Amino acid sequence: MGYESWAVSSKPKAHSSKLKDVKNMSEKILMGHGSGGRLMHNLVKEKFLTRFKSKILRQLTDAAVLGELKGKIAFTTDSYVVKPIFFPGGDIGKLAICGTVNDLAVMGATPKYMTCGFIVEEGLRISDLEKIFDSMKEMEKRSGIEIVGGDLKVVNSGEADKIFINTSGIGIIDNKIDLSYRKIKPGDKIIINGNIGEHGIAVVSKRQGIDFKTNIKSDCAPLNLIIKDAMASGEVRFMRDPTRGGLATTLNEIAEKIGYSIEIDEKEIPVSKGVKDACELLGFDPLYIANEGKVVVIVSAKDAGKVLKKMKRNILGKNSRIIGEVKKEKGKKVALNTKIGGKRIIDMMTSEQLPRIC
Amino acid sequence: MGYESWAVSSKPKAHSSKLKDVKNMSEKILMGHGSGGRLMHNLVKEKFLTRFKSKILRQLTDAAVLGELKGKIAFTTDSYVVKPIFFPGGDIGKLAICGTVNDLAVMGATPKYMTCGFIVEEGLRISDLEKIFDSMKEMEKRSGIEIVGGDLKVVNSGEADKIFINTSGIGIIDNKIDLSYRKIKPGDKIIINGNIGEHGIAVVSKRQGIDFKTNIKSDCAPLNLIIKDAMASGEVRFMRDPTRGGLATTLNEIAEKIGYSIEIDEKEIPVSKGVKDACELLGFDPLYIANEGKVVVIVSAKDAGKVLKKMKRNILGKNSRIIGEVKKEKGKKVALNTKIGGKRIIDMMTSEQLPRIC
Repeated sequence: MGYESWAVSSKPKAHSSKLKDVKNMSEKILMGHGSGGRLMHNLVKEKFLTRFKSKILRQLTDAAVLGELKGKIAFTTDSYVVKPIFFPGGDIGKLAICGTVNDLAVMGATPKYMTCGFIVEEGLRISDLEKIFDSMKEMEKRSGIEIVGGDLKVVNSGEADKIFINTSGIGIIDNKIDLSYRKIKPGDKIIINGNIGEHGIAVVSKRQGIDFKTNIKSDCAPLNLIIKDAMASGEVRFMRDPTRGGLATTLNEIAEKIGYSIEIDEKEIPVSKGVKDACELLGFDPLYIANEGKVVVIVSAKDAGKVLKKMKRNILGKNSRIIGEVKKEKGKKVALNTKIGGKRIIDMMTSEQLPRIC
Repeated sequence: MGYESWAVSSKPKAHSSKLKDVKNMSEKILMGHGSGGRLMHNLVKEKFLTRFKSKILRQLTDAAVLGELKGKIAFTTDSYVVKPIFFPGGDIGKLAICGTVNDLAVMGATPKYMTCGFIVEEGLRISDLEKIFDSMKEMEKRSGIEIVGGDLKVVNSGEADKIFINTSGIGIIDNKIDLSYRKIKPGDKIIINGNIGEHGIAVVSKRQGIDFKTNIKSDCAPLNLIIKDAMASGEVRFMRDPTRGGLATTLNEIAEKIGYSIEIDEKEIPVSKGVKDACELLGFDPLYIANEGKVVVIVSAKDAGKVLKKMKRNILGKNSRIIGEVKKEKGKKVALNTKIGGKRIIDMMTSEQLPRIC
């Protein structure tokens, strides 16, 4: 974290002439905002600490002191470089909070504490930074995670693309919870909580300036509450959020880990007409498009119905479906039963369909 | 973290033709290395997991599961954007490990677990990435911290400057340890573990291609062991690492927090001749130049001698000095007793002297 980044004096001294000049220029981020000096102190105090109210954050120490934590600790990090930084349904700030909350939640952890590291390109409008902070504040509230520390670096114009955000998170796994791909058994059902491909298509449509008529919004959302619902209503074995690489890559990773094959039914996989049309136009396969508000839940066959029912009641799971199951065959493959009655092997993609999607 | 970033198949499937093409191009980072697909899996497996051996890391789950931790948890983050990425005495990888280790250590925490998030510009030489990983591996070993998770994003050429690294760390503070600026009392002594300004000058000399004749190397180092030594030998009240903004900014931040003034003696502040000459040439003040291997230790007057002696025995503290003390006056100021017998107020800097120093 570095006190030097977040440290804020209680009473800034007057640097009258210099600071006035700076104020006139202060609609945009300057190199000096990243220097650890007075300019940074004021930016953090006026724009960040007015939004994020954690008592731990306000200590502004080199590291946040969280006290003792009971239960198993989960720890995760992700850097976000999405382009454009504002897209239908969200922005890089919303994405940065949700992505890390979701990485904790799929491990069965309750998201507790988060740090955020900003790398900002000189010249970014401070009003844009404030919009991003606003989104982060809203997602902090919705997910219940607490931002306890941060860091801000500024690089020259042309040395980064507007803003990159890293979020790292700590969650607590109740000692009774033990999710693992080792628990997955043949016959287990695979549930997804709704339409796939919306995040990737929303971002790419905005980036390329394509208007798909139907209004495709990113599904970006914190999944910790629907995941809590799912775990409370049946024997969940394992979860994953199918982000980069999409549902196909996630299922392939699971199949490789467990050794068994996975079979999914095309007709059960929820895809909106908008995403379908956009994918046809662009030559993409929705199975490989990134999601930011989806979770793949693997659940015992006997509890699948109960878990599905509970998930459907959550606003983030209204279109939940059982899309397939784990097979007895030890092929490590993912097979798609197509709508026209065929069977197709769904491989992990080699390279990107869409760069800078998250 | 994102399993999608670090997940590695135990037996990569053969994508014969495609992968061969890619191999021929693979001396440089491609966009596909950041996509969550096979290319990234192979890069992480071949270049990262061959160096970092943590059992937790190798689980490659969405979040690292650390088990239960006893003691108070410290949590910190920093993003590193130093330019150039290789400089005398270190590189961005060394810096990223040491900086976060030091932020934990100055809080009295034993550094335990770390995540690292890489944002890489397309076209970075993979051999450069490997050199950075090598430095990180060495620092992981020296500091005793364990890298348990990571993330890799690739952006197009021109959208970042070679590589940015975020490291986030978790440390454990023994329940007996309670460092706080609230514990600082008038009369307490201020110790620094050696020459100031070396990191900043080393980086800027390399960046600008200036040859200072004397060979100035960054002081970048993990301070957790010398800090442990200091804490074991006397009543340490508070510590800080004077990074961005240098010693002057750190002391100002402390003075503002405690309310008392601080007085330091110019003749006691260790500065090498090389740094002194370079600062004169460039018009900088060494008091404001970033350090990456220095710690300011505030210690009770009665124990100052013992702590100093112990610190001098550590290789990172051979040139340790008592440079000043906390005064009774409630001015929140930092005063420098100059060599020629005057007194000068040392203010916090407003903006940067040197951007992208860490």
